Amino acid sequence: MIIIMNKNAREADIARVEKILSQQGIRSERLTGEKQVVIGIIGASNGLDISVVTTLEGVQDVVRVSSPIKLASRLQHPEDTVITFSDGTKIGGSAPAIVIAGPCSVESADQLRRTAEFVRSSGVRFLRGGAFKPRTSPYSFQGLGFDGLELLKKVSEEFGLFIVTEVMEPAHAPRVAEFADIIQVGARNMQNFPLLRQLGNVNKPVMLKRGPASTIEEWLLAAEYILSGGNENVILCERGIRTFETALRYTTDISAVPLVKELSHLPVIVDPSHGTGKRSMVTPMSRASIAAGADGIMVEVHPDPLRSLSDGVQALTFEMFEEMMGELVRIGDAIDRQILIEPYTGAKSRGSKKSPSESPYKVA
Amino acid sequence: MIIIMNKNAREADIARVEKILSQQGIRSERLTGEKQVVIGIIGASNGLDISVVTTLEGVQDVVRVSSPIKLASRLQHPEDTVITFSDGTKIGGSAPAIVIAGPCSVESADQLRRTAEFVRSSGVRFLRGGAFKPRTSPYSFQGLGFDGLELLKKVSEEFGLFIVTEVMEPAHAPRVAEFADIIQVGARNMQNFPLLRQLGNVNKPVMLKRGPASTIEEWLLAAEYILSGGNENVILCERGIRTFETALRYTTDISAVPLVKELSHLPVIVDPSHGTGKRSMVTPMSRASIAAGADGIMVEVHPDPLRSLSDGVQALTFEMFEEMMGELVRIGDAIDRQILIEPYTGAKSRGSKKSPSESPYKVA
Amino acid sequence: MIIIMNKNAREADIARVEKILSQQGIRSERLTGEKQVVIGIIGASNGLDISVVTTLEGVQDVVRVSSPIKLASRLQHPEDTVITFSDGTKIGGSAPAIVIAGPCSVESADQLRRTAEFVRSSGVRFLRGGAFKPRTSPYSFQGLGFDGLELLKKVSEEFGLFIVTEVMEPAHAPRVAEFADIIQVGARNMQNFPLLRQLGNVNKPVMLKRGPASTIEEWLLAAEYILSGGNENVILCERGIRTFETALRYTTDISAVPLVKELSHLPVIVDPSHGTGKRSMVTPMSRASIAAGADGIMVEVHPDPLRSLSDGVQALTFEMFEEMMGELVRIGDAIDRQILIEPYTGAKSRGSKKSPSESPYKVA
Amino acid sequence: MIIIMNKNAREADIARVEKILSQQGIRSERLTGEKQVVIGIIGASNGLDISVVTTLEGVQDVVRVSSPIKLASRLQHPEDTVITFSDGTKIGGSAPAIVIAGPCSVESADQLRRTAEFVRSSGVRFLRGGAFKPRTSPYSFQGLGFDGLELLKKVSEEFGLFIVTEVMEPAHAPRVAEFADIIQVGARNMQNFPLLRQLGNVNKPVMLKRGPASTIEEWLLAAEYILSGGNENVILCERGIRTFETALRYTTDISAVPLVKELSHLPVIVDPSHGTGKRSMVTPMSRASIAAGADGIMVEVHPDPLRSLSDGVQALTFEMFEEMMGELVRIGDAIDRQILIEPYTGAKSRGSKKSPSESPYKVA
Repeated sequence: MIIIMNKNAREADIARVEKILSQQGIRSERLTGEKQVVIGIIGASNGLDISVVTTLEGVQDVVRVSSPIKLASRLQHPEDTVITFSDGTKIGGSAPAIVIAGPCSVESADQLRRTAEFVRSSGVRFLRGGAFKPRTSPYSFQGLGFDGLELLKKVSEEFGLFIVTEVMEPAHAPRVAEFADIIQVGARNMQNFPLLRQLGNVNKPVMLKRGPASTIEEWLLAAEYILSGGNENVILCERGIRTFETALRYTTDISAVPLVKELSHLPVIVDPSHGTGKRSMVTPMSRASIAAGADGIMVEVHPDPLRSLSDGVQALTFEMFEEMMGELVRIGDAIDRQILIEPYTGAKSRGSKKSPSESPYKVA
Repeated sequence: MIIIMNKNAREADIARVEKILSQQGIRSERLTGEKQVVIGIIGASNGLDISVVTTLEGVQDVVRVSSPIKLASRLQHPEDTVITFSDGTKIGGSAPAIVIAGPCSVESADQLRRTAEFVRSSGVRFLRGGAFKPRTSPYSFQGLGFDGLELLKKVSEEFGLFIVTEVMEPAHAPRVAEFADIIQVGARNMQNFPLLRQLGNVNKPVMLKRGPASTIEEWLLAAEYILSGGNENVILCERGIRTFETALRYTTDISAVPLVKELSHLPVIVDPSHGTGKRSMVTPMSRASIAAGADGIMVEVHPDPLRSLSDGVQALTFEMFEEMMGELVRIGDAIDRQILIEPYTGAKSRGSKKSPSESPYKVA
Repeated sequence: MIIIMNKNAREADIARVEKILSQQGIRSERLTGEKQVVIGIIGASNGLDISVVTTLEGVQDVVRVSSPIKLASRLQHPEDTVITFSDGTKIGGSAPAIVIAGPCSVESADQLRRTAEFVRSSGVRFLRGGAFKPRTSPYSFQGLGFDGLELLKKVSEEFGLFIVTEVMEPAHAPRVAEFADIIQVGARNMQNFPLLRQLGNVNKPVMLKRGPASTIEEWLLAAEYILSGGNENVILCERGIRTFETALRYTTDISAVPLVKELSHLPVIVDPSHGTGKRSMVTPMSRASIAAGADGIMVEVHPDPLRSLSDGVQALTFEMFEEMMGELVRIGDAIDRQILIEPYTGAKSRGSKKSPSESPYKVA
Repeated sequence: MIIIMNKNAREADIARVEKILSQQGIRSERLTGEKQVVIGIIGASNGLDISVVTTLEGVQDVVRVSSPIKLASRLQHPEDTVITFSDGTKIGGSAPAIVIAGPCSVESADQLRRTAEFVRSSGVRFLRGGAFKPRTSPYSFQGLGFDGLELLKKVSEEFGLFIVTEVMEPAHAPRVAEFADIIQVGARNMQNFPLLRQLGNVNKPVMLKRGPASTIEEWLLAAEYILSGGNENVILCERGIRTFETALRYTTDISAVPLVKELSHLPVIVDPSHGTGKRSMVTPMSRASIAAGADGIMVEVHPDPLRSLSDGVQALTFEMFEEMMGELVRIGDAIDRQILIEPYTGAKSRGSKKSPSESPYKVA
């Protein structure tokens, strides 16, 4: 913290600030210039909210000079965080960018199995599917709950898929962690601090969606809750912020990708399905995400979007998904970033990882 | 729901929409005009997200004609909700507008007792004070927890004050309910649905703060979660929304007051301390809130704001608070709305309610 | 400007910054502390955008310490600006708060005359009415142009009203200034700098509406364009900002009133008609504006809102307007601020100002 | 327009709406269903703002069924607009995506010539440079004016570059049009309607930047002003919208690219320099723009960003620019879209267009 005094602050004003700091046990030093006095805080501020001094006579401004972001910051951890799964699949750093695909909600065994089989045959390794759904209205479909998790488990084992699924309350975290390979924190829960603390103790990677009205700093501080609890495997997911523009459901903040990559070492992915809420936008925004440097994307795919109980407007059809995958591979190639594509060779494919060169998507 | 077809939609387009609705078990009727065909949905939509039909050929738009807000809506409950406390004190309807005052956080027994004594002597009946604090950074002061609740209980009994305090997670709700007279749901938890469901079962009024990026409709739907659980005593609290303007911490949406009073029967109060984050704004915005028709305000008061561990920048001093109270009483008088002021006559005042005419604040 | 170096900046980093400043002819001084080095800029920065140094090695941040707001700032002009009209009517400072009323657009001689007669008989002295209308669509009604100004002139003379009307382009400014008593700059033109410069040379007060996406600082800097041109009579008008909330047309930022009064000496009024876009919101928001300390309000009134060519949804009926006036007078009384009400005694009333005590609106 | 009546609207309510429409000369038809009555408007609404009927008893909602966007809409003009320059260079449709590069402001002959030579030698054909600068503060550098235009003209002729430069007021339009190959309307002037009307009469393409708080619809309606004046050559430029996020100067709305391409036939480009305000973000956001389907990008390049009088923080160095160009070519290739790269062969190159295959940037 630096306290900048007004150019016409009197000695008494400066001394008052110093006295108050000292009374609170805060060490400070005075930097005196020809025209300007600045007071620097040395060391910790004892949890005191120093900004209160802005209300004192003669104080111009209080400027934070050290970021509150510690464990999530690239300053303190210059190398990229890379998360490694059981079979060696990786997220982050220079690992191939991942594609997470699947239905918004787990609706039935049939819908899930058809989708899982399709995405796996397209080379995808991560299956999304909500069992617990945060819904704006209490009268909307709220998900199948633990039954949905059982369905996810079953198809993931059949096809060799990693499960990405959401947890909504602290008490559920341990049990959801048994099913999930990546535990998702939804956008509305980004600042559900008891939940974040709980996930700091869980032995599974956490995908933290950005709150629709959260700044980049708040997002990284939310990650800090998980990291400071001891769980180092946090993936950040941009999913659209709320702005005045209502032509699409949210404004997908693509610039968050390069900015967060600069500020933090954590992997960043983008969810253009929720970010746009419109099927025809998903492919171009997925392309843009990879081109901007994202470590992956998460999209909704549905065998029959017209009959989807939630968010059918934004789900890709199987055909659109396949076309998109080809484009992503070529864009990845343009910026020297592979896309994780692992051919499906039928049962037991989990663990028998193939080289991406066998991908069904040609690179020019 | 009404599905509006394009002016040049073909019969096949219309029939396809009708067929899809019918396959989903949804009854519809076709309204045919000279230039325009409209399809109305009759009865319930079976939880189906009808907006998916916007992706069909020939469909112009899908318009919701019945609001998803039921129990919170004034259409279904025209008379104002009035919440009555043990001693007959009321919130809402034509009851006097309330003032809730106290520190942001419970910091110590001394700080709390001094504040409580002061606000009670100013005629206030509701004491705010956070024991569990949602903080953006894991390294900030997080509150005294249940010890803080004990302190609140003690002073509330001594001075005859009702306690307004926050709960942060579902599992804590029953225990917080033992201490609180009004349970606060913080802005970041407005869409913490498991928490809202839990509070639907609790026998205490709930004050639901508006999320900083929540629309009025989302706010009322969050109230709907609590109401539909069986708890009819919900108070809405506007506390500022997040906008592009950063001169103040948030933009306090005063227009939310008359708008919500029109749409809903629930009491609405305003928290200008968090809404502005700046001490000198609190009094004018409190006046504006009452003038706009709010059922009360909630403000932070601190015996020594410079030494506050959280949010000292926005806490009123005792002197400022007293001056504000006088202004509120006169503004209330201007619009025929009393402000609840109950003179303090020492011990055991709880239950010995005095007439507002004995208020220390003169009305012109 | 102050340049804050990183705690681990090397001497070479500091020297590089100093050298670059020096090469640009900018004087600086180094303030050295135990843990921190800060470089202060002395005097003017030669129009150089110093923020570029943030891109240099070792620089933590560049902090502006003197506001770019000069003439509009209360720091440089502590006493309130009070604007005085030909007959002694005043705006700002402790002068009675004004009410500006009238139709959105001048539509016809009859509509305007009926409205003017009504508002004048209610004690109002300022008539609004748009002759040039900025419309989002080129196919909407664009106003009557100079014919509309002639109509305004005629009724203003008949009833003793001051005219508030908008100018849309620099070339029109001199001619509009012949008709208008207050020249309005619409929200979309707040940063039309050639127009602002032109109005700096005009001998009429200018009402500068806040742009719907403009920060307070940008608003005051827009005023600075007019003031620096030599026109000291600027009135600021809050008319709603664009936020994510779409339940009302804009979010009326009532907190802008006390904040701008603190930062600037210029009068501030509020336009709740455009701010909310909804008739039933206008009265409560007008009350809130006065309660928050506004120097006046501007509202739309129409003899037959259902037949209005523009913005009929938000125009008050005559009956609603009268009721509102009574409430404003009483709220003004509650905070010791008169509302300008000047009884109408028929022809030639302009110049024969009556004491506000003869107002038709009773104060309790 | 469709007027949706409440489910419990009475016959008298419906008849009143029909009567009012009829009195205004608006034809309507009643569509009666089992549960619902809807009133459709037939033909034009005579400029009447039909939304006023929402204030009538029994009216649920008024829904616009035909977009106010006509000439800019893809519905009325399905094929892409392609703008062709004197030597056959094209923008839009399947023409190669263009790169516009240059300094923010024209500062001096030397700065401009060095930049122009560099960008031309990189294969670029469009030179940006502001001679008239809209600046938030009246005390900032306001551009060299017509002298700046002369400098632009000179270097454009020397190197065979098309000039993209801004016009700020209607009266300047004809003269700026003599210098510019593309006339830029800045973001703050997007709704400067007199300026837009003036540009409808000008025989040069217009690049219309999106206002920082403008919706997609408002942006297209602003284009409609130019198109309806007779100028068919409008290029849309996304340059960032204003949101709550302040980590970067604006939030670049990449989703506007595919959305506008869907709604309109006009070319769309992106300006990530102003959109982000941060040099290190420009390249990834340029890549994202091309990947999302933009018809081009506009970026700032400066021979010595540290000494730039305006916006030096966001200007690319020559080295960064070259690297970016190579990436854009490869990304364009990945989505089958060429990037316009025309090798520079020295003097008189204008008109001697080379095939893009001679580009210095390799495609894998």
